[in-house]
Parts: sequence; structure tokens; C-alpha cells
Amino acid sequence: MLPSMTTFDLLLPEDTLRHPDSAKWKFYPDDVLPLWVADMDFAVAPAILAALQERLTRGLGYAPFEVEATPLAPLLREKLATQGLADLPTGGLRTLPGVVPGLYAAVAGLSSPGDEILTMTPIYPPFLGSIRDQGRTLRAVPLLQQEDGWQIDWDALEAAVSPATRVLMLCHPHNPTGRVWTTEELKRLGEFVLRHRLWVISDELHADLSFGGPHVAFASVHPELLQRTVTLTGPCKTYNTAGLGIGAMISHNVALLDRITALTRGVQGHPSALSITMWIAALEGGAEWLAAVLAQLRSNRDHLSARLRQELPWVRFSPPEATYLALLDFRQHPRSADIQQFLLTEAKVGLNDGPPFGEGYQGFVRLNFATSPELLDEAINRIVRAVTQSE
Amino acid sequence: MLPSMTTFDLLLPEDTLRHPDSAKWKFYPDDVLPLWVADMDFAVAPAILAALQERLTRGLGYAPFEVEATPLAPLLREKLATQGLADLPTGGLRTLPGVVPGLYAAVAGLSSPGDEILTMTPIYPPFLGSIRDQGRTLRAVPLLQQEDGWQIDWDALEAAVSPATRVLMLCHPHNPTGRVWTTEELKRLGEFVLRHRLWVISDELHADLSFGGPHVAFASVHPELLQRTVTLTGPCKTYNTAGLGIGAMISHNVALLDRITALTRGVQGHPSALSITMWIAALEGGAEWLAAVLAQLRSNRDHLSARLRQELPWVRFSPPEATYLALLDFRQHPRSADIQQFLLTEAKVGLNDGPPFGEGYQGFVRLNFATSPELLDEAINRIVRAVTQSE
Ligand SMILES: Cc1ncc(COP(=O)(O)O)c(C=O)c1O
Ligand SMILES: Cc1ncc(COP(=O)(O)O)c(C=O)c1O
Repeated sequence: MLPSMTTFDLLLPEDTLRHPDSAKWKFYPDDVLPLWVADMDFAVAPAILAALQERLTRGLGYAPFEVEATPLAPLLREKLATQGLADLPTGGLRTLPGVVPGLYAAVAGLSSPGDEILTMTPIYPPFLGSIRDQGRTLRAVPLLQQEDGWQIDWDALEAAVSPATRVLMLCHPHNPTGRVWTTEELKRLGEFVLRHRLWVISDELHADLSFGGPHVAFASVHPELLQRTVTLTGPCKTYNTAGLGIGAMISHNVALLDRITALTRGVQGHPSALSITMWIAALEGGAEWLAAVLAQLRSNRDHLSARLRQELPWVRFSPPEATYLALLDFRQHPRSADIQQFLLTEAKVGLNDGPPFGEGYQGFVRLNFATSPELLDEAINRIVRAVTQSE
Repeated sequence: MLPSMTTFDLLLPEDTLRHPDSAKWKFYPDDVLPLWVADMDFAVAPAILAALQERLTRGLGYAPFEVEATPLAPLLREKLATQGLADLPTGGLRTLPGVVPGLYAAVAGLSSPGDEILTMTPIYPPFLGSIRDQGRTLRAVPLLQQEDGWQIDWDALEAAVSPATRVLMLCHPHNPTGRVWTTEELKRLGEFVLRHRLWVISDELHADLSFGGPHVAFASVHPELLQRTVTLTGPCKTYNTAGLGIGAMISHNVALLDRITALTRGVQGHPSALSITMWIAALEGGAEWLAAVLAQLRSNRDHLSARLRQELPWVRFSPPEATYLALLDFRQHPRSADIQQFLLTEAKVGLNDGPPFGEGYQGFVRLNFATSPELLDEAINRIVRAVTQSE
């Protein structure tokens, strides 16, 4: 599987990747291939670059204070309508400095200290942080690792609910498993939420990185859920712009957003003028670049899956339906108790360790395959060599 | 007083100023000259522009998560040392998405709901917001408007302290009066603070916009104050970069910063990679631009003062010692009860109204003179014409 020309256009040059500006490339020593934090090794979309360069010619003064006064609001509304979130009311769209600040703010606004919050693990670590750091009680419901992939444990979900449960935190698509919850699963989750009168915080940041059909927003599957859900989104994963933070908090229930933002008034600051320019440019002109990226990610995913199945069949792995993140189960390896450290020192590959994703994930690592086929192959080679030598 | 060539280099072209990106220029109708929000009508320093353009060639991935891992930390330490804040310990420097988020966070961390917080009015409105929005009790101590300028009312300050008083919020230089507190005043304030065992939040964002000597940080005037003070700073006023938020919270008392940041963990997000690039470029290469800006601001200030004294001698006004903000007392005008609205509709000049700066400031307006001499003259002409016609 030879990389197409598109691949070479996407990848940043190596000296650029290795610049001290890059957290991903400079965190580990130079001889380590960093396949950890969720950045892609790709240049940003030409439309974004052009828009930012043009924006810089106009100084860096305060941008309009209300997102509704910018072209971002109608563009986002239009996009959300394609995901089932049409007719968002005025006040139903608030910008954020990033999605993690939205997770924390929504937890603070929708629950009180001591309240219980449900989430399905393994999960993007700031979900757990937003619960624990704010004195809420985590009710972690592990997903079931089955032959057909990661599945919701419906019985465990029911069992985890108590009278003190207030919120379900959902990740859709799910980081780190790459699951895209089907409409059927979303409906069953919705029924569960309504029956127990829960609020939902649905992080849908990876919506546009799905290899399947168009994204279906959780809140869209039942009219009552529109009143019970805060949806979080942003451009940073899709367009590889995590260094220029911005996000949005969305709900058809404006009072709910008022309740949340009242608690963070003044604390969060405004998204930067350049973040707004960037998101507008992404929505207006990023489609072609995104299609090329998705084709590359899909090809990388398939290549990774094929090589793992063939060369390390004992590593359990369900190919993701979205995202560029692969959760690998190395629990059969003798060094499973410190597998991230083992792969770092012996394979010289920097991965995310399992335990921050929840209790019970020692022996798992998360691999970021948003790189060139060459670097991905080199990383797989190194991993295969290290685990084979140690056998 | 003819503008030098430098002036023309500084000012952004009018079609750029009037772009929808600009909150300052687009808030009011097109026939209004906007001399309100604290942006300068000047292009950013060439060094900043060049650094941002160069930075954009390297993608927009996550920047290093710790400010100490960037060149910003040593540059800031070096600069703070010149203001009396030498030997800042590790952990004594935290980045913020902006200075207002720092005001809110520090109030939250250094006081409890119901506690009393002192500040001297008139004051930059988010000081009052950070107190009220978070359920603290405001103890406003009005400055004295004297022939020799705005002065601290020491007796009123003493009288305002109760056993519930926890914090003094200081603005140095002071927005909106433009006072730069003298070392003598700072020492007396320091003695007051130590005697009453208060914490101090010192917003020193305008430090580099002083027309006098080098800035003396409040915390530097007594060793014990280093342990009682959180100093806030940032590049946005000096370098005209409010649209690209970043700030820093500084203290020699690391435990104090830990206490504050524990409360905002996760909620604030990281400053953007471009904000960090921008601040580094400003500190490394912004000096020449800043000198030109200061010369222009001083000349504008003197011109404004001279015209007001001659043409509207009944408008009380103390020329600022720093900042590009002029607080004008129109209380002798028959329309003082709605003076901002009067000047907006009759003079077509958009100014900040007095009341948001504290109780008792109806009849005052704040004028931003960081524009070209031509636009400033035009604004003064319009104001003089409007108030003269209505006499
Ligand atoms: C599910 C999810 N939410 C949020 C984030 C981070 O968003 P932000 O950088 O906008 O805070 C990530 C980053 O990887 C993520 O995977
Ligand atoms: C004294 C003072 N503090 C803070 C700010 C705002 O800072 P930021 O935009 O970084 O929140 C201003 C803006 O005018 C100001 O004058």
C-alpha cells in the first residue's frame, strides 16, 4: 500500500514536526516516535492557513464579543442541522476556549458536589478529571470488549444509577475506542436517560472524523433529549488546530446553558479572534482537505489493523469507526504491568498509557495513527521487534 | 502639532479598521467615531506579525503544556525582575487565557462568598464583576478628584476595612484614571495591607504604557508583600493584541497560586500556541514599535489636554500618567444624566459611560485616545461642537 501524493502533501516536514513548538514531538527524547497526544502530523488545511494570514493584516484587536455577531454562528447552525440539531434557538450556541473547559463547566453547572456522574470507560481522561477535580462522584461503567468491538454494558449502566445520579457524560464518537454509537444505541441510551431523568453532556468533538456515514447527534434521537442535553463540539480534532483553542456548547435548552455559563462568567475569557477566523475558514473551505485526511486515516487504520492481525494476533484491537486513535490491548504481554514504559524504552515509540482512561486499563495503550504511512510502518516495525525480542 | 511619519506607519488603514472583525469599529453605526474599548487603532508590531506568520508555517498542534518549557518563561522572568519582581520561584508563573480570567480566578481563590473585597473606584468594570458575580461583597473606596489629580482617600480606605475584609484589588497603573501610583503611595498601601493582613490582587496590565519612569510592581515595595500579592500581567494593552488572549498570574507565594489554580483546573483551557508566540515576539522584538507608540500616545494626550483646557475648561480632567484612556468629568453639562448617550447621538463619538466604573460616576465618560492625531482632533471637534451647540 503505497502512499498517494496526497499523503506527502498532508505531512509536515520532519524539521517542522520536531520544532520546539510541538508538544507532541518534543515531549519524548528525539529517538522516540511520538504516537501519543491527539494531534495529526499534517499541515492545516490551506483554506485555514490563508484565512489566518489574511486576518493578521488587520491587527489583533478585540473581535465581536458575541458569536452571534460573527459569520461563525450561521455556519455552525447550518452544520449542526445536518447532524439533527436544526432550529437551535438564539442563545443556544456559546463559544468556549476549548472543549475540555466545556466539560468542566457543564459538570459544574449540571451537578452539585457529591452528585454522581455516569460515564463509560475507557474514556478520554479529562472526563474523569472534570468529575473528580470538582468533587463529584464517578460512576464508571466499563464498556464490554467483545469480538465485534467495544459494546455498551446495558445491565451495568442500569445498575450504576442511584438516586444521586444526575448526569451521563457521553463521548460520541468515543475516544479512545473509536466507536461511533449507532442510532439504535443512541435511542436506547436516550430512553435510559429519560427514564432516569438525567442530564447529558455529549462530547461530539470527533464527529467529522467518522469513516461511516454522516454524524447523528445524540440529542437528535428524541425530542425530549434536546431539552436534556448539552452538546460540545469544536474544530480542533477535525482540522488539527488544538494549538488554537475554541469550542462550542450547544443546547436547545437555553436555560440550561445560562445555568452553566453563569458559573464560569469571567473565568474563561473569550475565544481568540484568530480561533474564530480559523473555525469559519474550516467550515467554509476545509472540505477538500478533510476528505484527503479521512482517506489517509482510513488507509492508515486498515494498514495498522492488517499488520497487527498478522504479526501480533494476540494484541486485541477493534479497528475504530472514527478518530485516528487505536486502543491496543497488550495484556497478554509479559510486561503488561508497565507496557507504555516498555514500548517507550524498548521500541522507542511514545504511546498513551491505559490507566488514565479509567480503572482496569493497565496493559492497554492508545496509538495515534495520524501520521504518514512511512512513520506508521516504522512505529509498527519497532513495536513488533521489541515485543518479539522480549518473548 | 503635525503627525510624524511614525504616526502614519502606526495607524491601520480605515477600511481595515472598519472591517467586521473589529469590535471597536463595528459596535456603533458607521458615522460614529469609536473611542471606547481599550484597543489602539494601530497595526501590531512588525516583530509580532512576522513571528505569527512564521509560526503558521508549522501547523497548529498543541504547544508545550507548561509555560516553563517555552522561551516565554525566561523572558517574562527577566522583564519582571526589572519591575522589582526578581527571583520568581518555579511555579511562581502561571499563564492565563487573559487578565480578566485572572481577576475572577484570584477573587475565587483568595476569598469566600460573603467576604469583603476592597477596591478604589472608578475602576475597570470587570473588577466589580469579579466581586459581584462571585457573591463577594464590594467595599468601594472612591478616589479623591483633586486639583493635582486622582488621589487615594486614606481615611476612607481605613474606614472600609472590617473583620470580613480579605482582599485589596489594585489597578496599577489605574484604569480609567491613568494614575501610576508612586512608590510612596505603594509603600503606604503596603503598610495598610500588612496591618490588616489582606491579600492583594494587583492588575499591572498597563505597566508598559507609562509615560514616566520604569514600572515599580506593587509587591516589590516590601518583602512581606511578595507573599501576599498575586500580580497579573499580559501583553494585550501594550502590544494591542486583545484579540489573541493570554495573561500571566505571578507570585512569590507558590502556595497561593496553587490555591487559585486548583479552583479553575480544567475550566480555563490553555493559552493558544499563537498567543505564546506573540508574547515572545513582543518581548524580544517589540521595543522599537512600543517607543513609537508611547511617543504618539504622549503627544495625543498632551494635545487632548491642551484642547480641553482651552475649549471646554469646565470639563474636569487629569491627564493620565499611563494608558491611552482619559476620564472626562462632564457633570457640569446639562445632559450629564445621559452624557454618553448625548455624545453618541449629538457628537457621533462613541465613549465608555461612567457608571460601569462604579457608583457615583454618572456624568463621566472614558475616552480612548490611541488613534491618529487626525481622528482624535475630529472627535474633539465633534464633542466641542455638540456641547457648545447645546449650551
Ligand atoms: C473527546 C475529546 N474531547 C475534548 C478534547 C480536547 O478538546 P480541547 O483541546 O478543545 O479542550 C479531546 C482531545 O483529544 C478529545 O478527544
Ligand atoms: C486593567 C485591565 N485589566 C484587564 C484588562 C483586560 O485584559 P484581558 O483582555 O487580558 O482579559 C483590561 C483591558 O482593558 C484592563 O484595562
